[in-house]
Amino acid sequence: MNPWQTHTSRIAYENPWIRVREDEVTRPDGGQGIYGVMEVRHPAVFVVPVTDDHEVVLVELFRYTTGQMSLEVPSGGSDGQDPLLAAKRELLEETGLEADEWERLGGMVALNGVCLAPEHIFLARGLHAAHDGARTNAEQEAEGITAVRRVPWSEVMGMVRDGAITDGETLAALLHAGIALGKIS
Amino acid sequence: MNPWQTHTSRIAYENPWIRVREDEVTRPDGGQGIYGVMEVRHPAVFVVPVTDDHEVVLVELFRYTTGQMSLEVPSGGSDGQDPLLAAKRELLEETGLEADEWERLGGMVALNGVCLAPEHIFLARGLHAAHDGARTNAEQEAEGITAVRRVPWSEVMGMVRDGAITDGETLAALLHAGIALGKIS
Repeated sequence: MNPWQTHTSRIAYENPWIRVREDEVTRPDGGQGIYGVMEVRHPAVFVVPVTDDHEVVLVELFRYTTGQMSLEVPSGGSDGQDPLLAAKRELLEETGLEADEWERLGGMVALNGVCLAPEHIFLARGLHAAHDGARTNAEQEAEGITAVRRVPWSEVMGMVRDGAITDGETLAALLHAGIALGKIS
Repeated sequence: MNPWQTHTSRIAYENPWIRVREDEVTRPDGGQGIYGVMEVRHPAVFVVPVTDDHEVVLVELFRYTTGQMSLEVPSGGSDGQDPLLAAKRELLEETGLEADEWERLGGMVALNGVCLAPEHIFLARGLHAAHDGARTNAEQEAEGITAVRRVPWSEVMGMVRDGAITDGETLAALLHAGIALGKIS
């Protein structure tokens, strides 16, 4: 089944969140070479929080990697936690919200040409404000979140089309949510 | 606007496709630390090829990173080419198809918590077989592609829901395609 052969493997870089493995390989066509794989330490979780009025709750934050502001669904590393617990924690920390109904929509992998980065997608409904605003503000500041927005579903689709949402995982999570909510045929 | 400060920056790992930059930073909440960013050498391109009967052309290949078979839209690195030219090349190499109509649907970034990986999404319509089957087979073997499948749109959505498609970029590209094709409200 696996058309690749791995001859050697070494850790070329490591920090608390990611590591890079460099393997000597024989490729499917028989060529010799190396393959560098960036592995994330823990799976990530992505939450699509949807209100009773079919608004999606999005967070706005500055991304260090891209040097740009980004509008995204709440997300984060699972830090070794059970994915559902991590999803609940991220939703609370990033938006101050809790949800009565949770549904795991699926799993995905990001950038699978060069990364091993498993991810879980959740739909959160029955939203209500949780702990006090001061605590939420402190946690949002630590995460670099500058705004939380509730955007009607159809407007979110317009923002995707117009390039206002460019986070790949947010797009993928929205596809899953759209299917689960019966908005995609 | 940028709530992060970068104090030092070094290349911690590098190969022909990716590199890892490790920066010493001050985080938005004032904490000191490091940030490892994996950068791809060139943007990647993702093509959603759609037939006149609204079938999506998907390729099946083994992914070295995950150790699994994956069903995906045709994609690849742009290798420094213009993204549209790269998209045409990848479609041809991976499926043996050419397209009369090309539309760039948008840009996205993958795994933006730890990566700088820009990506372009294209819709390809007016599909027709291009060069001979023997050449296509050789190119597919080099890319590790074991099958090309034409799947009706509604069946593709079922495969997303049921977990048969887990490539994050394919999911994101399908959202853009669904919006462009008027299948998402």
